[in-house]
Amino acid sequence: MNTKNNIGYQISGKGTQTFQAINPATRETLPGDFVSVTEREVNEAVALAQEAWKSYRHASGQQKAQFLRDIADEIEGLGETLVERACQESGLPAGRITGERGRTCNQLRLFAKVVEEGHWVDAVIDPALPDREPMPRVDIRRMLGAMGPVVVFTASNFPLAFSTAGGDTASALAAGCPVIVKAHPAHPGTNALVSAAILRAAKKNDLPEGVYSSVQDSGYQAGTQLVQHPQVKAVAFTGSLKGGMALHKAAMEREAPIPVFAEMGSVNPVFLMPELLQQDPGGLAQQMAGSVTLGAGQFCTNPGLVFALDNEATDAFTEALEAAMQQTEPATMLNEGIFKNYENRKEQLLAESGVEAAVKVDAPSEAWKGFPAVAQTTAKQFIHNPLLHEEVFGPLTLLVRCKDYAEMQKAAAELAGQLTATIMGPEEQLAQWQELIDTLSRKAGRLIFNGLPTGVEVGYAMQHGGPFPATTDSRFTSVGTDAIKRFARPVAWQNCPDALLPPALQRDNPLDLVRTVNGEIGKDKG
Amino acid sequence: MNTKNNIGYQISGKGTQTFQAINPATRETLPGDFVSVTEREVNEAVALAQEAWKSYRHASGQQKAQFLRDIADEIEGLGETLVERACQESGLPAGRITGERGRTCNQLRLFAKVVEEGHWVDAVIDPALPDREPMPRVDIRRMLGAMGPVVVFTASNFPLAFSTAGGDTASALAAGCPVIVKAHPAHPGTNALVSAAILRAAKKNDLPEGVYSSVQDSGYQAGTQLVQHPQVKAVAFTGSLKGGMALHKAAMEREAPIPVFAEMGSVNPVFLMPELLQQDPGGLAQQMAGSVTLGAGQFCTNPGLVFALDNEATDAFTEALEAAMQQTEPATMLNEGIFKNYENRKEQLLAESGVEAAVKVDAPSEAWKGFPAVAQTTAKQFIHNPLLHEEVFGPLTLLVRCKDYAEMQKAAAELAGQLTATIMGPEEQLAQWQELIDTLSRKAGRLIFNGLPTGVEVGYAMQHGGPFPATTDSRFTSVGTDAIKRFARPVAWQNCPDALLPPALQRDNPLDLVRTVNGEIGKDKG
Repeated sequence: MNTKNNIGYQISGKGTQTFQAINPATRETLPGDFVSVTEREVNEAVALAQEAWKSYRHASGQQKAQFLRDIADEIEGLGETLVERACQESGLPAGRITGERGRTCNQLRLFAKVVEEGHWVDAVIDPALPDREPMPRVDIRRMLGAMGPVVVFTASNFPLAFSTAGGDTASALAAGCPVIVKAHPAHPGTNALVSAAILRAAKKNDLPEGVYSSVQDSGYQAGTQLVQHPQVKAVAFTGSLKGGMALHKAAMEREAPIPVFAEMGSVNPVFLMPELLQQDPGGLAQQMAGSVTLGAGQFCTNPGLVFALDNEATDAFTEALEAAMQQTEPATMLNEGIFKNYENRKEQLLAESGVEAAVKVDAPSEAWKGFPAVAQTTAKQFIHNPLLHEEVFGPLTLLVRCKDYAEMQKAAAELAGQLTATIMGPEEQLAQWQELIDTLSRKAGRLIFNGLPTGVEVGYAMQHGGPFPATTDSRFTSVGTDAIKRFARPVAWQNCPDALLPPALQRDNPLDLVRTVNGEIGKDKG
Repeated sequence: MNTKNNIGYQISGKGTQTFQAINPATRETLPGDFVSVTEREVNEAVALAQEAWKSYRHASGQQKAQFLRDIADEIEGLGETLVERACQESGLPAGRITGERGRTCNQLRLFAKVVEEGHWVDAVIDPALPDREPMPRVDIRRMLGAMGPVVVFTASNFPLAFSTAGGDTASALAAGCPVIVKAHPAHPGTNALVSAAILRAAKKNDLPEGVYSSVQDSGYQAGTQLVQHPQVKAVAFTGSLKGGMALHKAAMEREAPIPVFAEMGSVNPVFLMPELLQQDPGGLAQQMAGSVTLGAGQFCTNPGLVFALDNEATDAFTEALEAAMQQTEPATMLNEGIFKNYENRKEQLLAESGVEAAVKVDAPSEAWKGFPAVAQTTAKQFIHNPLLHEEVFGPLTLLVRCKDYAEMQKAAAELAGQLTATIMGPEEQLAQWQELIDTLSRKAGRLIFNGLPTGVEVGYAMQHGGPFPATTDSRFTSVGTDAIKRFARPVAWQNCPDALLPPALQRDNPLDLVRTVNGEIGKDKG
């Protein structure tokens, strides 16, 4: 395991600061003195990325697909070494890490398929119309291309799938952008192993040095420097609102603004229809408790708010939910910071006026375990107190009791932007809540019916994003194949000889792409 | 002609500040005391837009198409009244204004066609796979929808086509977003006439009050207030770097960031191959002079930089270009500010070390006429001096002499982001400049071969945008049908009963759209 930085193909540890990872399950320091990157090394990584971009942006779909598939193979080849280290650095169980590795590799292979097929470049062609009146039309052809070097900040809560070779890296590499990973300081060893896998795949494919670099830093200096470097063209981040907004601010202080795709989580409200609560309050409570406590509640789609009418069915549900949560074994949280933040935020929330709680209170423990909690309040309090709208990252949910549907609708209208919003009810009765559904469709990136928000499918149709504060840019997704579009910009070619055009735009359509020709979508020549 | 503000369907002039338009051709005040909008009226306009958004975002493609076509008809119905006032407020000749009106109306009708067809919503469907192993796949369907109220700042240089009912307004209304226009203070009468046309069309189509508002202000207060209003969701602007960046900064100071699409112009470099210069230096010079002086050089695609090798063919071209520019009749510039800025910037540029000039020096005149100018420098100076890279808005071009192709390539590598970059040469020889073309494709939104950058086709394939400082967001275009995508965000519907889905996502494909189903593009049900 490399404890230094990967500056292109070089292993480089010129810095004097070092740090160690900690096993949150044991609070013990793990082996490995990781060397924080220096300012100079960061500049070298960006310079290499900029040079690599000049050629890598022209890599064919086949070349990029091979690279992505080789990364997946190399990651699988790390075997138990990777699983073991990721478990040690995250406190997550081996089953979860193995599942996440599968998701990570599937994701890489899905992006490989997308770039191999090639339609993602969205080729649009308006052929010349020399006889058009009053003026001839000149030939114009447009497609997406790689924007430039991309900086990826890895997330603490998914040490593999939203990390070194996660969705951000996979989509940026798929777009044709070199990537510089700023590793999360809690997972330096996992990052070192996966970075080595990526670099082996890059070398195997003879890709230019700088197509991938990875830097370690226990503080904020390297990250800020990367975001502000003039040659960096986009930034991807998954984490807290505070962290995301700090990066956004750093980017906005640049002379030339660049996009920062910060996915900052949300409270993911769930609305329960009374008819459903009546049918099976206990079953629903079990499902809900499972979703709230999954992964110690450390998912960005964790259901942190539940809205229901204030009636007997809700009483039964609440009782069952509290019991289910109390019975859930507390799990180790990802790191000390997240654990302490959960404890503080939970305490703050429960201290708010009009908030009651059912909290599991065990003997105080030095272990960083997240004890599940259910809090309750009224819609009136919720509407009145913006603090109740804020995310508590961990296994906690706040039940909001509404005196009627009108009040529920009023509370929904006050919600900030969300990654997801969920409505649960008998299918034949959902239409009664049309107004609520409509309100939520203005607030959220994904609307879920009769499901739970945890579990984000990596597919073509997924939207993992939403209005602020869920993300800094609601027009894009950070999960699913469209994530690639975050790192591309269109270029139009006017009156260009066929031989000089990128293949995707050539008249004979040599890549057999679906293109828009004269406004018609198809595989026409043109 | 209304001299007050349009707050929804109300004519409102509660303010006490007034201002007048000035005819730049005569420097005389035009009739009409226009009332600057108050803070309260701005808030009313936004509140109405927010309410209107809730229903207008669901308008069908047919409804929006009818609205856009009615706007075009209403504008044409204004007849000579509009042409006359626009000429008076801009100093542009009637032929140009009539042409621009045609472009504006064609643009509205093209967006009508796009929303009527409906493919722009980019429907993507991953149907449920209940038998998938190891986990079933849930049904997910995604499409674009309107983001919310949009603020449009009208441009000074296109009083119709980039103005009240220009591309920004047309594309935002097409997306389903209400629009609040902040009119350019130089064209209040033109804005009043066109706003009335838009509002007549809105009423005719029974659209909700607030789908369109228009506010006047001779200062910056109303504009800043609009950009910072929490319910405004996007901003479009065409104008100077200074103006665009001020709006961008105002938007970044919001609690919730929003996209600002500022198209801030560029210098649009043109590279001339020596073989072409040898063939017909005089003809090429005539073409170039025509492009540089078109509309008094007040186009964002005006060719402000010309690169050529330092040889005899370039000498002949330069001589012919200087003569052609001297012979061009100076035209009235748009307003006093633009005229004075042109004079100052020209003076600054010509005072730089190593810059020589052929400038038409007539007797000093009080008239705001832009006298064409050709300046010359060496690539060495150009590379060395960043001031030579900056736009001079007006009929001026800077010829950069390069000692060889390598030096030209070096100069090109120093260029900032551009709307366009142009290469002119014999078709069979263009491939020799592959490296230069490649460099320019990293810098510009549109690459032009053997044409001139002025003249921006409104079509499906157009890209009018580019890396900073050309725009604040290179991923989008402000001209052409894709401009609509600036004002939309994706929403995914998970496991939603068919009857509750938007028609574009329903299983039977009732709108007969091209959609992506299971990753395949076509008209399949799914």
